[in-house]
Amino acid sequence: MSTPAQDSGREINAPPEPVTPAQVNAAWGGRFARGPSEIMEKINASIGFDYRLADVDIEASMVHCRMLRAQKIISDPDAAAILGGLSQIRDEIAAGKFKFQTAHEDIHMNVEMRLKELIGPAAGRLHTARSRNDQVATDFRLWLRREIDAMIRGMTQLQAALIAQAEAHYDAILPGLTHFQSAQPVTFGHYLLAYVEMLGRDRGRLTDARRRMNECPLGAGALAGTPYAIDRGFTAAALGFDRPTENSLDAVSDRDFVVEFLAAASLLAVHLSRLAEEIIVWYSDRFRFITLSDQFTTGSSMMPQKRNPDAAELIRGKTGRVVGQVVSVLMMLKALPLAYSKDMQEDKEPVFDAVENLQLGLAAMTGMVADLKVNVAAMRAATTGSFITATDLADYLVMALKLPFRDAHEITGKLVSLAEGKQIGLADLSLAEMQPICPAITSEIYGFLTVEGSVARRTSYGGTAPDQVRAAIARAKARFL
Amino acid sequence: MSTPAQDSGREINAPPEPVTPAQVNAAWGGRFARGPSEIMEKINASIGFDYRLADVDIEASMVHCRMLRAQKIISDPDAAAILGGLSQIRDEIAAGKFKFQTAHEDIHMNVEMRLKELIGPAAGRLHTARSRNDQVATDFRLWLRREIDAMIRGMTQLQAALIAQAEAHYDAILPGLTHFQSAQPVTFGHYLLAYVEMLGRDRGRLTDARRRMNECPLGAGALAGTPYAIDRGFTAAALGFDRPTENSLDAVSDRDFVVEFLAAASLLAVHLSRLAEEIIVWYSDRFRFITLSDQFTTGSSMMPQKRNPDAAELIRGKTGRVVGQVVSVLMMLKALPLAYSKDMQEDKEPVFDAVENLQLGLAAMTGMVADLKVNVAAMRAATTGSFITATDLADYLVMALKLPFRDAHEITGKLVSLAEGKQIGLADLSLAEMQPICPAITSEIYGFLTVEGSVARRTSYGGTAPDQVRAAIARAKARFL
Amino acid sequence: MSTPAQDSGREINAPPEPVTPAQVNAAWGGRFARGPSEIMEKINASIGFDYRLADVDIEASMVHCRMLRAQKIISDPDAAAILGGLSQIRDEIAAGKFKFQTAHEDIHMNVEMRLKELIGPAAGRLHTARSRNDQVATDFRLWLRREIDAMIRGMTQLQAALIAQAEAHYDAILPGLTHFQSAQPVTFGHYLLAYVEMLGRDRGRLTDARRRMNECPLGAGALAGTPYAIDRGFTAAALGFDRPTENSLDAVSDRDFVVEFLAAASLLAVHLSRLAEEIIVWYSDRFRFITLSDQFTTGSSMMPQKRNPDAAELIRGKTGRVVGQVVSVLMMLKALPLAYSKDMQEDKEPVFDAVENLQLGLAAMTGMVADLKVNVAAMRAATTGSFITATDLADYLVMALKLPFRDAHEITGKLVSLAEGKQIGLADLSLAEMQPICPAITSEIYGFLTVEGSVARRTSYGGTAPDQVRAAIARAKARFL
Amino acid sequence: MSTPAQDSGREINAPPEPVTPAQVNAAWGGRFARGPSEIMEKINASIGFDYRLADVDIEASMVHCRMLRAQKIISDPDAAAILGGLSQIRDEIAAGKFKFQTAHEDIHMNVEMRLKELIGPAAGRLHTARSRNDQVATDFRLWLRREIDAMIRGMTQLQAALIAQAEAHYDAILPGLTHFQSAQPVTFGHYLLAYVEMLGRDRGRLTDARRRMNECPLGAGALAGTPYAIDRGFTAAALGFDRPTENSLDAVSDRDFVVEFLAAASLLAVHLSRLAEEIIVWYSDRFRFITLSDQFTTGSSMMPQKRNPDAAELIRGKTGRVVGQVVSVLMMLKALPLAYSKDMQEDKEPVFDAVENLQLGLAAMTGMVADLKVNVAAMRAATTGSFITATDLADYLVMALKLPFRDAHEITGKLVSLAEGKQIGLADLSLAEMQPICPAITSEIYGFLTVEGSVARRTSYGGTAPDQVRAAIARAKARFL
Repeated sequence: MSTPAQDSGREINAPPEPVTPAQVNAAWGGRFARGPSEIMEKINASIGFDYRLADVDIEASMVHCRMLRAQKIISDPDAAAILGGLSQIRDEIAAGKFKFQTAHEDIHMNVEMRLKELIGPAAGRLHTARSRNDQVATDFRLWLRREIDAMIRGMTQLQAALIAQAEAHYDAILPGLTHFQSAQPVTFGHYLLAYVEMLGRDRGRLTDARRRMNECPLGAGALAGTPYAIDRGFTAAALGFDRPTENSLDAVSDRDFVVEFLAAASLLAVHLSRLAEEIIVWYSDRFRFITLSDQFTTGSSMMPQKRNPDAAELIRGKTGRVVGQVVSVLMMLKALPLAYSKDMQEDKEPVFDAVENLQLGLAAMTGMVADLKVNVAAMRAATTGSFITATDLADYLVMALKLPFRDAHEITGKLVSLAEGKQIGLADLSLAEMQPICPAITSEIYGFLTVEGSVARRTSYGGTAPDQVRAAIARAKARFL
Repeated sequence: MSTPAQDSGREINAPPEPVTPAQVNAAWGGRFARGPSEIMEKINASIGFDYRLADVDIEASMVHCRMLRAQKIISDPDAAAILGGLSQIRDEIAAGKFKFQTAHEDIHMNVEMRLKELIGPAAGRLHTARSRNDQVATDFRLWLRREIDAMIRGMTQLQAALIAQAEAHYDAILPGLTHFQSAQPVTFGHYLLAYVEMLGRDRGRLTDARRRMNECPLGAGALAGTPYAIDRGFTAAALGFDRPTENSLDAVSDRDFVVEFLAAASLLAVHLSRLAEEIIVWYSDRFRFITLSDQFTTGSSMMPQKRNPDAAELIRGKTGRVVGQVVSVLMMLKALPLAYSKDMQEDKEPVFDAVENLQLGLAAMTGMVADLKVNVAAMRAATTGSFITATDLADYLVMALKLPFRDAHEITGKLVSLAEGKQIGLADLSLAEMQPICPAITSEIYGFLTVEGSVARRTSYGGTAPDQVRAAIARAKARFL
Repeated sequence: MSTPAQDSGREINAPPEPVTPAQVNAAWGGRFARGPSEIMEKINASIGFDYRLADVDIEASMVHCRMLRAQKIISDPDAAAILGGLSQIRDEIAAGKFKFQTAHEDIHMNVEMRLKELIGPAAGRLHTARSRNDQVATDFRLWLRREIDAMIRGMTQLQAALIAQAEAHYDAILPGLTHFQSAQPVTFGHYLLAYVEMLGRDRGRLTDARRRMNECPLGAGALAGTPYAIDRGFTAAALGFDRPTENSLDAVSDRDFVVEFLAAASLLAVHLSRLAEEIIVWYSDRFRFITLSDQFTTGSSMMPQKRNPDAAELIRGKTGRVVGQVVSVLMMLKALPLAYSKDMQEDKEPVFDAVENLQLGLAAMTGMVADLKVNVAAMRAATTGSFITATDLADYLVMALKLPFRDAHEITGKLVSLAEGKQIGLADLSLAEMQPICPAITSEIYGFLTVEGSVARRTSYGGTAPDQVRAAIARAKARFL
Repeated sequence: MSTPAQDSGREINAPPEPVTPAQVNAAWGGRFARGPSEIMEKINASIGFDYRLADVDIEASMVHCRMLRAQKIISDPDAAAILGGLSQIRDEIAAGKFKFQTAHEDIHMNVEMRLKELIGPAAGRLHTARSRNDQVATDFRLWLRREIDAMIRGMTQLQAALIAQAEAHYDAILPGLTHFQSAQPVTFGHYLLAYVEMLGRDRGRLTDARRRMNECPLGAGALAGTPYAIDRGFTAAALGFDRPTENSLDAVSDRDFVVEFLAAASLLAVHLSRLAEEIIVWYSDRFRFITLSDQFTTGSSMMPQKRNPDAAELIRGKTGRVVGQVVSVLMMLKALPLAYSKDMQEDKEPVFDAVENLQLGLAAMTGMVADLKVNVAAMRAATTGSFITATDLADYLVMALKLPFRDAHEITGKLVSLAEGKQIGLADLSLAEMQPICPAITSEIYGFLTVEGSVARRTSYGGTAPDQVRAAIARAKARFL
């Protein structure tokens, strides 16, 4: 297989003409007699992935330039030339006409080299009072801040889809499971609202991460600050940051914001995987609680009858990759002394990958939740045959007969054994059969054994009673939509 | 090796007399004809680690009992008996006289079974309107909330120790490194403040996690809520929670708070590992920037001259275990359908282990930071011989000669090559040697080439100039101590 | 809660009398003026977990002593005293009478200090030509080698239990699933043999790991080898190693064997988790393919009807902890320069924990597999209603009518849609209904639509036909039992 | 930024013309009334990465076709057409002319759909007796087997570079460190051979993984085997496998080989990171043990004097990503019931990424090791001033004066303290100064205190004596090159 042909098709950073590996990098200046080896250039270049930062890099450079002008560090004409050039580069990139080049290593130098082509030596004034170390720390925060906003929108849409289904089925009863065994009946609306809560906490974590990262590193220089009379407050404010970072060494060395984002993303991935698992189970032949349309199922190349819930499986399967990403960045940072080391270039691909896959997963999950048809009858039918109201029976013994709960539990266990031996339900036991175990039982007991009654009685705050669920839906709309 | 002898020494849960494995568990009630197999009991029991929850479990039970009494769900005399019994159990545990038993599975049943011994059948009323599912979710939050508070105190002490050293050495100059290569001179005080910032963010993350977890699951029951007329607001308030949890299924199924804590703890561990790495490097023979006393070094069984920085190495080495813990819990939660599954019993040991090791690491690091002696002369000496003020030279060309930075960088690179070839420093180059490369250079240049000057000029906000560092110390005290 | 009281109960390393923290460690020799701080001693001591190495440590010391004697490095009387003393210590430990002391840091010094008490200065000759660095590397390999053997025995027992159930149910038909959707019928025996294969590979990996680690580090000294005329071949052979390690720096610095073991253990944990998932699903109310006895189920403190498959859930839930352990050790080792660093003390607890939990998991799984009752009728019943022989229909079109498979797949898909619309099975379609879609279909088709026929026809090597399964059982017995 | 423009440039799977999302997939057959939603198609398609399997997919299809022909399952003319078509497709791909299409999901259907265009309905006979489940399991093994071979070649080259440097510097002395503190002198050749050993074990693990994975899944069908009279032995042999897999369910469900590869790759990454750390340290200003040429260093955009060891830092930094990959796959597999689920599509990207990055890392490391210049004088100079021969002094006391080692260690410690107090070396102490501490010391002691003597005496097998190192080099060449 011709991999070069493959690569030319898929690599955005494929340069239009061959790069001479031994070419000296323009940004490193006059000390270097030779350029890097070919393998060195290949392992070193980040343009293959950091091209995604192009627009935030240009935005930050424009603000930096305006600050330098305002502070009289560069002249008005130079500033005008730089701003004009950057504006043109932004347009070239937007139009897909920009030539990204591996020889220029990264997005910062790709932009600066193009700027030099466009405006000449004045381009060399843009890098005054900054380093790529503070530049990339700024760019990456700008990029991630924007993506977090987009992810929160995606999460809100999923919450909206869940709430809509919950509202439609606030009183549809299905068996609630613990240990994957029938436990107590609950309503489908109540069930879905549990996921609305999880997503709510996920939003909270992303919001906190966004707030904590929203400080501007620009002006930290390579590591020590700068002797130029810069105005870090100007730059921070113009880029929408809350304030400048406090310590220059910390500003260029830390990637807390990356780890905090990926950790929050891992929990989101876990929540999506749990919901995906539910959908896979509910859609299986032994459950059939829901139906997925052809829009969200796929077929088999061999078995003609199959309709597989691939999207749910992929969402579940992608959990590992997000968790793997948080591991990768924590491990990269472990025991790195200050300040910037090149290891930290490994911070971006994990985030790009996690963002892309989670956005895809959120969209697919939102589509599936909106698409699914609920089989109310199958859900209700599944509540029979497993003594699912045994706890209600125990509650009867406590409430009506004033037994201690532990004794009520013991008696109920014996009644379950009795019914199980007879292969009948609890409600099928006669008083004559029950009273040898607990003489005080009266016919009042039968009112406690229906699943509808069981659900309706669970009126404690946050419980599954349909009225509670409707109230919870109203609160959820107010809190999240 | 006699493992039983070993085990009897180290297992808190070693029962005083042999447990019959086939004994039926009292909490499971009347349905079970036989008890668990021996291996089943062994894998199932959690008392070996969840005994740590004893006091929060009793606290939550006392509040639950008071609420049941206030709501007239249990009688005053029963409540009084329960509260008295729980109080006595608390004392027994505090006195080390309580007999934890594997046969009772977990801390909840150990306490309830003892309560029954003490007060008889009324003990059976305590479990009214609750399940172990909501009980353990409540206990674990109470425990972790308290430990977070303790950890924040430990982090504050470490910040205080760092700030004290920073204050003592706010103007001590050492080579700042990027890529572990001499980059620019910085002050030791500035360096240490970078870690104060990291710890500040770590405190912020733990504070956010604490706030988000501070909702009370009690009353969610097994999964569906409860039919008893409980007052969840009462319980939540009495236990210091901000509010009851919103959804009963979510309340017993989610362990977000565990993951969020462990993720924040992982970042803290990474920060400690970075500082540990610095200490190990600074203390090495090639650096000798600091000295550690006998209090924080250990010797070798074979090499008599050794004084090893074991504590720093152990702090660095423990990073992996905290990150491993967050992986373990995320993986445990992945794709679990609602509601509670027994897998979730695996949530506690990772947290116990992380808390214990991080508290130890924080204490050891605080001790080391306070203990270390700074070798100011060695730090200063290490700034020579590596052209560490080359950036200052470039800045001179920009500031004094109005060159574009990129051209200044190029010229400086050539001057570095020149000096390197001559094996002299930049300040040792004569004007006659420099002017062929850049004719406009004047003797003013020499003012830019001292490390003291370099540091003093970096007055941008958050920069390393001693005045800035003193201001930053004042701000750090106000923000953190 | 009085944690000191707790701790005194559970810490094996609790010394019988208070240790003065400032006491100088006897093994470090004369250079130290003061002892470690209390927190330093606490973080540094490993005796709390490495006591598990006691017997292999003594074994290795005895062999080392015999080698020193044979090489005339120590005298016969000194050797006799040392061997006698070590033998007594071994007995003391076996009898539970040995006092482990934190002040002696680790198992090596605990043993040596006791030896000195017993035999006086001659004890000081045992450490000739060795360091704790090569000593612990040797001990840990000896320990792990033995545990791997025990684990392989546990895995063989699980394979035996699976094969026994497979033999009993080699022709019991259940729906084989892909994407958790009915795919094709398979036999239960065939299903279980898939897990026998996984365990076979797991055994292979552990066997390879054992072989690769079976080299003796003793004699590498602290890092550089030793000037004494030792005989590393003697030591290696006497301890059952295949050969001495090749390079002294590598011998004391690498923990490959730990990571390789934990990685193989992680896959074993994943395989156990997959089987646990099957058991949980098969045991659920919607499946009921199997029954678990009271021996392997547990009850609920609140819901009297519950019989939960806790052991299976715990086996599944423990997967994360084993994977977390491999992460922890890889992260600990990352970027450590040669030779030994104290970080590496963190290598043991992950292994101890993984071994303990996997042995428990293997035993519990073996018990459950042997214990479970198969509900053959429920399995067979679950093959209806989902067009599970659609692939057989397509195979008929290929085999009997010579259609290309892709066309046969297309036609079958249409027939499935037809039957689905009529809410009947494929075999319920009349020829008159089928022939409009494919005129060449004859009544021969009906022979292809039974699940028994479907299974019986899959006679390809490794296929699910009962005869194939019986042959596979015979091969599995020969290969694994 | 115009992301569509970006994407069209970098996505190999960008179809030449717009795909209608609602188009029904040809492989799924007649049951589907509608096609997938756009987001479903996007999350589901794997062609964006599994195009890498194109050539092995075609190879396996050709062998499958030949087997079907030999078994008379398809006719000679159909087989000839298929083989011709596949050959043409292989050429199209090699020439970069093949149009990969997202609408065809994966590499398997892309090839089959093109085959149909080329040869018509006969193409539909290729999928007889196979499923994509066994097809992809086969393809991926073929691909990984080949890449393992390439990686082993890369590792051998690195071993060769290390051995060449070891040979050139078999007797160059540098301080061996434990705890990053001067421990004992060792030779540079000895040091490098430690890494040769690690790589040797890494090769062993990859070789074992390759052997264990080298079984052919083809013929397992979707999960149950096949009713066609296939010859699995023919297919396995023709594709270079050792045998067919034993169990059809296992064959399509397990990804052991992926995890085993990634685990072995993780250890390789850790070893590379350790060597990278050494290089970074040795190249630093405080060490300067080695020099890297311009070919393997990079500059700074801001600091003109910098020559950074970026390649080493990137190799170190990439460790986390490989470990993250093994986490991702283990987590994906956790608790998946049999047989194939779509989650398993997530198995490939981690492997592709790990292979690509490790091959890059191996090449860069090999280049750096070959490129580095050793500063023998600096290494030797660094052995002074840290009492590095203190162990030799203790050995003298044991060997010459017959003291127990523990007493010798104690006395040496006191002598070190004495010399330290006087700020002189051990060899600078007079007999008069030493004898008060140990009267038996004679002038013979001075022969034990040179680093050359220290190294030369360590003649134990695997020790650092130059003669031992030369012998070890000879053995390493024989074993590895």
